[in-house]
Amino acid sequence: MAPIIPMTFLAGASGRWRITRIAQHTGPSLPPAARLEVHPGHDRAAAAAAWALRGSTGHQRYVEQAEKRQLVAVQAGLERKEATCAALIPIRKSAAWWELAQDERRKIFEEVSRHTAASMKYLPAIARRLYHSRELGEPFDFLTWFEFAPEHAALFEELVGLLRATEEWTYVEREVDLRLTLEPEPAAP
Amino acid sequence: MAPIIPMTFLAGASGRWRITRIAQHTGPSLPPAARLEVHPGHDRAAAAAAWALRGSTGHQRYVEQAEKRQLVAVQAGLERKEATCAALIPIRKSAAWWELAQDERRKIFEEVSRHTAASMKYLPAIARRLYHSRELGEPFDFLTWFEFAPEHAALFEELVGLLRATEEWTYVEREVDLRLTLEPEPAAP
Repeated sequence: MAPIIPMTFLAGASGRWRITRIAQHTGPSLPPAARLEVHPGHDRAAAAAAWALRGSTGHQRYVEQAEKRQLVAVQAGLERKEATCAALIPIRKSAAWWELAQDERRKIFEEVSRHTAASMKYLPAIARRLYHSRELGEPFDFLTWFEFAPEHAALFEELVGLLRATEEWTYVEREVDLRLTLEPEPAAP
Repeated sequence: MAPIIPMTFLAGASGRWRITRIAQHTGPSLPPAARLEVHPGHDRAAAAAAWALRGSTGHQRYVEQAEKRQLVAVQAGLERKEATCAALIPIRKSAAWWELAQDERRKIFEEVSRHTAASMKYLPAIARRLYHSRELGEPFDFLTWFEFAPEHAALFEELVGLLRATEEWTYVEREVDLRLTLEPEPAAP
């Protein structure tokens, strides 16, 4: 397994990703910004022109052995050349979610909502990485990052729609949906 | 459930807790220091005279519904007047542990090692709080904090010995064991 990767999502006037849309989904949105830089480490958060969100990769909290084998066999990595579309979906779950015991959360996550099983058909077209933010004292619990080729944009909408319809999502109390395009910054005039 | 509590353990010349012992258990120890302050938040880490360790409380990763009910019924809170002894045991687990799936970790943690079940008989005499550090980029994965009255010191040794003999502990690759006494600082001369 990869070691912990700390990451900061810096929104402002510069960055490799052009922000094409910031949609408020549940709860308050994020301020508008033109571009996003995905910056390794947590030290640069103060440098954000518009806003910054920090997260760290971590171990998988719910995935069991058999599911893990399936995921490893089928999932794609980030930064594929053709994957010029991305989505950043910061999520916060409710206190009621975090008060549940592990077996209750697992049951809602997988046995009822089939989070991993149902997502499997969208791999490897959609590559994703989950950053944990809750214990960093951030406004969101998770930053979910997705990368895909333009021809898989409709497939991605289907995946997002499917997850939002699950029982798990009834515990989401804040969700913002950012869409991005990998685009070199215009040369300085 | 309490919200996330960020905490910094600051070691140096001052602090409410007098450090009576720093014992290296597995892997490198921590530098010696006379006193420890337990400071809410993560901002003060740079102010440490000797060293600082940061962690945040979080949700319980393994405890199931029935165990949680038992724990809630029997556990004691921190800062009881009689609990003038404390232990800070920072722990790092191996990459092999973090590579395991959730069901494998749960099995080792509880079905084999009986972490929660076996600890139950030490409650409420020993109060404890777990801080998560791994995703903060800290040198340890967990900071475990215990408080007890002097007459329960032998009971605490028994608990620590019991945990260290479990299969779960074969995944611990670094462990330091600090013992502390709540003691007002001597008045300035």
